[in-house]
Amino acid sequence: MKPKSFAHMVCPVARALEAVGDRWSLLILRDLFLGLARHDDLSRSTGIPPTTLSSRLRQLEGQGLLARRPYQTNPSRYEYVLTPVGEAAWPILLGLAQWGNAHGGLAPAEVPIEFVDRRTAHPIHLEAVDSLTGDRVSAADIEVRAGPGADELARWRIAHGEETRRVRDR
Amino acid sequence: MKPKSFAHMVCPVARALEAVGDRWSLLILRDLFLGLARHDDLSRSTGIPPTTLSSRLRQLEGQGLLARRPYQTNPSRYEYVLTPVGEAAWPILLGLAQWGNAHGGLAPAEVPIEFVDRRTAHPIHLEAVDSLTGDRVSAADIEVRAGPGADELARWRIAHGEETRRVRDR
Repeated sequence: MKPKSFAHMVCPVARALEAVGDRWSLLILRDLFLGLARHDDLSRSTGIPPTTLSSRLRQLEGQGLLARRPYQTNPSRYEYVLTPVGEAAWPILLGLAQWGNAHGGLAPAEVPIEFVDRRTAHPIHLEAVDSLTGDRVSAADIEVRAGPGADELARWRIAHGEETRRVRDR
Repeated sequence: MKPKSFAHMVCPVARALEAVGDRWSLLILRDLFLGLARHDDLSRSTGIPPTTLSSRLRQLEGQGLLARRPYQTNPSRYEYVLTPVGEAAWPILLGLAQWGNAHGGLAPAEVPIEFVDRRTAHPIHLEAVDSLTGDRVSAADIEVRAGPGADELARWRIAHGEETRRVRDR
């Protein structure tokens, strides 16, 4: 079943989901971030059947998130590495892992993966940061605004959401 | 087609995808973050057919990400609000939106949605932060480590990824 395309939707979340939003694709991206690169390794790690894996790799390549590089000739063999556009998806993966560690039903002793600063070994987490000052911004202070490319539906979604919340919090 | 369950996978990314990884579900979460709460509004905003929407809402409720609250009796009508577990998913949504704005094929004049600090109107973005000191950590300094709950596959994935990258960067 081919899922409905999100490409026409005027929303950056929908656009990101169109590019990376397949669950298998996100597991592949996880492994590319970890450094895995070969079809066999990706298949072993993800459990994705080989032909499905090949199709997802082609899709991610077509979306500009990964590049194929030959590592052997006769027969030709390729490895897969993230492009800068793919590398830029790291907050999505860290966000998923952070939420899964904290809210995926795991006790602390069951946490399978941890993220640290390699220079200090301190644990890290994601925060919103002011792009001008570098100050941290709490989730409660994040405001969503319609951008220059918002269509009527996007404007309604933002305005009506704000209004609904205002009424609810009254 | 029922997608394969990721619930058995020992990986927080897989666990998060099991809970929120359906593309429709992520659009619903987007709208709940914006403040939308009613079935009709969620249907209008996402374009999800009503019965599919009901099923995804039940699933998100079952995963503990949203709660149903009655707002009318005779007939009963419910609105949907994020629980604290659902609210904790905000970095996933902001990560998707940030990537979609920057790499979703949009010119700056086409950006449909912007994120600012409501106190200063400065733009914001996601960064990794040292959980002890609050210092920002560059993506290049993020290290992934096996946690106490890592199984053999998770340990192999991390170690083999590191080794593959070391060989590649040599």
